[in-house]
Amino acid sequence: MRNHVTFDYSRAEAFFSQEELRMMSRQALDAMGVLLGRRGAGSDLLGWLDLPGNIDKEELARIKKAAARIRKNSEVLLVIGIGGSCPGARAAVEFLGHSFSNILDREKRGAPEIYFCGNSFSSTFLKHLTDVVGDRDFSIHMISRSGTDMEPALAFRVFRELLEKKYGRKEAAGRIYATTDQEKGALRQLAEQEGYETFPMPDDVGGCFSVLTPAGLLPIAVSGADIDKLMRGAASARECALKNAFVENGALQYAALRNIFLRRGKSVEIMCHYEPGVHSISEWWKQLFGESEGKYHRGLLPVSVDLAAELYSMGQFIQEGSRLMFETIIDIEKCGEEISVNEEPGNPDGLNDLAGRTVDSVGKNAVDSVILAHTEGQVPSLMVHVPEANEFYLGELFYFFEFACAISGYMLGVNPFSRPGVENYRKNLYALLGKPGYEQRREELYSYTNGME
Amino acid sequence: MRNHVTFDYSRAEAFFSQEELRMMSRQALDAMGVLLGRRGAGSDLLGWLDLPGNIDKEELARIKKAAARIRKNSEVLLVIGIGGSCPGARAAVEFLGHSFSNILDREKRGAPEIYFCGNSFSSTFLKHLTDVVGDRDFSIHMISRSGTDMEPALAFRVFRELLEKKYGRKEAAGRIYATTDQEKGALRQLAEQEGYETFPMPDDVGGCFSVLTPAGLLPIAVSGADIDKLMRGAASARECALKNAFVENGALQYAALRNIFLRRGKSVEIMCHYEPGVHSISEWWKQLFGESEGKYHRGLLPVSVDLAAELYSMGQFIQEGSRLMFETIIDIEKCGEEISVNEEPGNPDGLNDLAGRTVDSVGKNAVDSVILAHTEGQVPSLMVHVPEANEFYLGELFYFFEFACAISGYMLGVNPFSRPGVENYRKNLYALLGKPGYEQRREELYSYTNGME
Repeated sequence: MRNHVTFDYSRAEAFFSQEELRMMSRQALDAMGVLLGRRGAGSDLLGWLDLPGNIDKEELARIKKAAARIRKNSEVLLVIGIGGSCPGARAAVEFLGHSFSNILDREKRGAPEIYFCGNSFSSTFLKHLTDVVGDRDFSIHMISRSGTDMEPALAFRVFRELLEKKYGRKEAAGRIYATTDQEKGALRQLAEQEGYETFPMPDDVGGCFSVLTPAGLLPIAVSGADIDKLMRGAASARECALKNAFVENGALQYAALRNIFLRRGKSVEIMCHYEPGVHSISEWWKQLFGESEGKYHRGLLPVSVDLAAELYSMGQFIQEGSRLMFETIIDIEKCGEEISVNEEPGNPDGLNDLAGRTVDSVGKNAVDSVILAHTEGQVPSLMVHVPEANEFYLGELFYFFEFACAISGYMLGVNPFSRPGVENYRKNLYALLGKPGYEQRREELYSYTNGME
Repeated sequence: MRNHVTFDYSRAEAFFSQEELRMMSRQALDAMGVLLGRRGAGSDLLGWLDLPGNIDKEELARIKKAAARIRKNSEVLLVIGIGGSCPGARAAVEFLGHSFSNILDREKRGAPEIYFCGNSFSSTFLKHLTDVVGDRDFSIHMISRSGTDMEPALAFRVFRELLEKKYGRKEAAGRIYATTDQEKGALRQLAEQEGYETFPMPDDVGGCFSVLTPAGLLPIAVSGADIDKLMRGAASARECALKNAFVENGALQYAALRNIFLRRGKSVEIMCHYEPGVHSISEWWKQLFGESEGKYHRGLLPVSVDLAAELYSMGQFIQEGSRLMFETIIDIEKCGEEISVNEEPGNPDGLNDLAGRTVDSVGKNAVDSVILAHTEGQVPSLMVHVPEANEFYLGELFYFFEFACAISGYMLGVNPFSRPGVENYRKNLYALLGKPGYEQRREELYSYTNGME
């Protein structure tokens, strides 16, 4: 078994030439020069680059202390946030924890239940979540740079009210943790006024790169995972990404290859996996690359597919539908639990052929079968091997993708750290809600939608 | 409020001409003629077309009786199946039920917990699911036409063993329900030998069209939903799809429009929604269209996006990334729960502007804001309006999409009812596992993969 997350393009070599890769390696190295020299677009948003080494020891200790307090006094932790601030924590909690973590008995789980909310206007969902909390002890981790994004602010109102009703305003304040701007903004102000414990959302780290800030680290620590080990993994991947030559630098190779496939006409990258626990890592990856590269009408559309479950349905499209895509597989090399196939009298299901083998080893054959079928079907397969599911390798994986994303975005020719498109909704929403200052937009929209319902 | 599921292309009218729609309407009507005349490819697999009226009353009664028994004697129901046989049931259970159904107290849920499995080779997942079951009373619904698909067969072995250990072989048999081929196959044989209650998987209904067969209906009934009402809804949509002229026939319009956008160069359809409970309907839709249309290197890639949560991340790509896509929104018109925004002293989050409004009504503004932004961004928005979340409208929705899928597939020029590509993996897997009869394929694969790890 390898002892690092590694990138492997050997299964895709039929789909590009070595000369092509050499030429693209130069572009990747140029992009790295721009990134590390802080000479590119968005270079004021590179805080994530050095987080693994730079994170304040005192802050890390404070996160662990807060997590210990929440683990002790709460049966439920509600994490409120939208956009990039939650998918990283969710990925970690689901990948490192039990597949049915929130369903297990407290004793088996050994941690509070953790729910992510504040990312929709669904009152049904909010109401149902209050049913789940019931009259149990709970705490809130509110993540918002400004405090005024509507979806999280609404959820925060609902649960803050519940908390204050249950514990009184003062004790409630002791159960609210805010990750927010270090100096300004509505949430900062409220936190100082009420006495919430706060953690800084660094100015120079965008939401979708924020998993290794307190936004991600606090819930991850509450789940019982070792955040020091996570940071050590990230530091290890950083070392590799910043120092290794191209031939040993998986992040640069991955960035180069996705741009090769894009320029050869692929328009979609499918992130797939065969372990249900990886699902939320794919979702995190999707938001990272989608937000970072989706600009100037460019970019590979990132799509996540749970290939274990969807092999017999979406599998048909990947095998024989429009030839739009290549795939990247997150492969967990050593599985956490083992089950063996036994001989069964009468062989009622035809499985006796497999007697003595582990389910996991059969699964490895299944992955190979699919790669071979996809290769025949003209879908190149890239692989990211993760030795096993633990904090260190997850830290490596997070950093690997973040670094590759920055390089890939620069190779594509966009600013990977902005998200101008998201502002369009916000402006429209404020205009439709009649917010002062948006009168002109409101008029434009009304003239535009004239005749619509 | 409308009292049917309706299709609405009014927001997308800037993106096609009326003449174009007229011409495509003829193709859609031709496709319908071929479908209903049973003159097209795969016409031996049209059982789903008449299921709402044709389903055996005695069988429906037997499903309800089995469901009542499971509800009475089990705390957990495990539904084992892969491919198209489970996503429909899952969509129904999650859409009609509580957002955190398996987490609620039994008393509040009023039904057994329901878990879907048998769709991966993950022993971690299987092991974790046995933790969840623990020593509680449970039953199994095994869905497999043949009984020898490996992923479900493996899960069935694991849980059958657990069941037999707990209750003895005879009582265990009374807790196993098999939906399988009516006459042949390993599971049919085992069921007859052991005395499981069985339900027929009709020969003429493919997996991804099977939600209204016992494969879907049994777990839906166990969840407490009214399957008669679901079938009435499907019958209502069938009536509309088969009899209405094009101008009043949403399914034909939807099929025509997706083919218009495809021929105009769009290659991806994004199914999105703003209610978390709709998530699994999008997943069901994805497998239906992906498997049905992904042939001859054709078809729109179906992608599902949870827009509430992903608005601030994937939203950037949809707004400004590659112009590959159009979107279809599943819009739930009336929400199940209401929360109002109150005036809060000091207005710490800027939400007082919304005081007196319901969260749901703000959400409607948000959806409009996004549609307007996407329209400006050259992403056409189609809408499917669902009056509210209940069994009748869900039945309409299922049938609406199934009918539209068949028409759309014929317009595309493929057989929507086959899945030849899926066979490729299966053959490779059997070859890699050394199964007799696959020696030649094995040799091919080995010569092919020579040099691979």
